[in-house]
Amino acid sequence: MLTLFHYPLSQPSRLVRLAFGEYGEDIALVEEKPWARRPEFVAVNPANLLPLLLAEGEQAVAGAEVIIEYVDETRAPLARGEPLFPGGPLERAETRRLIQWFTAKMNAEVVHPLVRERIFKPQMTADEGGGSPDTRVMRTARANLLLHLRYTNWLAGSRNWLAGDNRSYADLAGAAAWSVLDYMGEVPWGEHAAAKEWYARMKSRPSFRPLLADRVRTLVPASHYTDLDF
Amino acid sequence: MLTLFHYPLSQPSRLVRLAFGEYGEDIALVEEKPWARRPEFVAVNPANLLPLLLAEGEQAVAGAEVIIEYVDETRAPLARGEPLFPGGPLERAETRRLIQWFTAKMNAEVVHPLVRERIFKPQMTADEGGGSPDTRVMRTARANLLLHLRYTNWLAGSRNWLAGDNRSYADLAGAAAWSVLDYMGEVPWGEHAAAKEWYARMKSRPSFRPLLADRVRTLVPASHYTDLDF
Repeated sequence: MLTLFHYPLSQPSRLVRLAFGEYGEDIALVEEKPWARRPEFVAVNPANLLPLLLAEGEQAVAGAEVIIEYVDETRAPLARGEPLFPGGPLERAETRRLIQWFTAKMNAEVVHPLVRERIFKPQMTADEGGGSPDTRVMRTARANLLLHLRYTNWLAGSRNWLAGDNRSYADLAGAAAWSVLDYMGEVPWGEHAAAKEWYARMKSRPSFRPLLADRVRTLVPASHYTDLDF
Repeated sequence: MLTLFHYPLSQPSRLVRLAFGEYGEDIALVEEKPWARRPEFVAVNPANLLPLLLAEGEQAVAGAEVIIEYVDETRAPLARGEPLFPGGPLERAETRRLIQWFTAKMNAEVVHPLVRERIFKPQMTADEGGGSPDTRVMRTARANLLLHLRYTNWLAGSRNWLAGDNRSYADLAGAAAWSVLDYMGEVPWGEHAAAKEWYARMKSRPSFRPLLADRVRTLVPASHYTDLDF
């Protein structure tokens, strides 16, 4: 069994967990605090990226986008079911664009700032930068959230799945992002019906179940977080 | 012929130009100012990423990492010469890790801040955020530069090529980064012999020639920029 160093509410960690889940593969999870720079962890992972996969032969593969390509190269050829990089090179480029959109851009502009202020800071020491949340940072992240929600809603409303006709890693990347915000009760689903309907489809997949069981010490999830008919 | 929207001293644009160059394929270049958010450009490219490739069928593929995968999927199967994603899945993961290291991390920490302060700002209007360079930003970027130069030097000194035994897209990504800094005369090559020797090897490749001919209006290149024995 492979080992994944992760954090429960780390968006890129969730993307990788969903991908293994889609292939029906169990992995061992080790929780790593994203704000701690453990020397042993940084030694194998100089960018201090989460998640980090100990792949075949205990070799480290770091970073969600790199791990997704690794998982696809090693799992997809033997998998039953539809490919998660569907279509030809242009369709795969669209899938990769959206993986990057959610995992780099939306995480930096929305998810990571909110998780940092609301979940990491209460657990961090003063030396690590802990303290009360910065309301200005949260206000900016929430304004960005609405832009990303509108974009997700537009994608979900104009295509079967986010990247096109077929379900793909882009849906996993998007669901990883929105699931963290949904845990924190940050998503005004009501006014975004297409995004909500798409997220409900993703949430009801078996690969999603372990994410719905996640809990962090400092914040209980929003009441509808585990509800499949929210 | 495909069209690439690029900027001469944009590091990710250079990575894509090097990749097409390695396949001996000419592409049409259209210069796009990275700080301008041209509505027509943002419409096809919501993240406003450079470079943007108009691929087969005029379909837009945006962002260097996504374009590299597209180029590899469509060009490598028919190419003569060694593959630029060499080896098996773990070797390809190491190549992808370094592409991301240079293109996301080093660009954000070093190259983009220095290019922005020294090259973009003198061309930007006050409304666009132009003005004199921020010396604090430049000082931080230069301190980060030394860390990245030490890391590149370590990689070049302990492996044949940056990602391992064979030349790969990681070398193109690294060379794209260092070439922009070298244009600006920012690299203390003298104390980093392994990095220098590796960069000299990359610089003498035919794919590099168009980059050495690049000039931007507001800054002439360092005197050794085009010198293959610098």
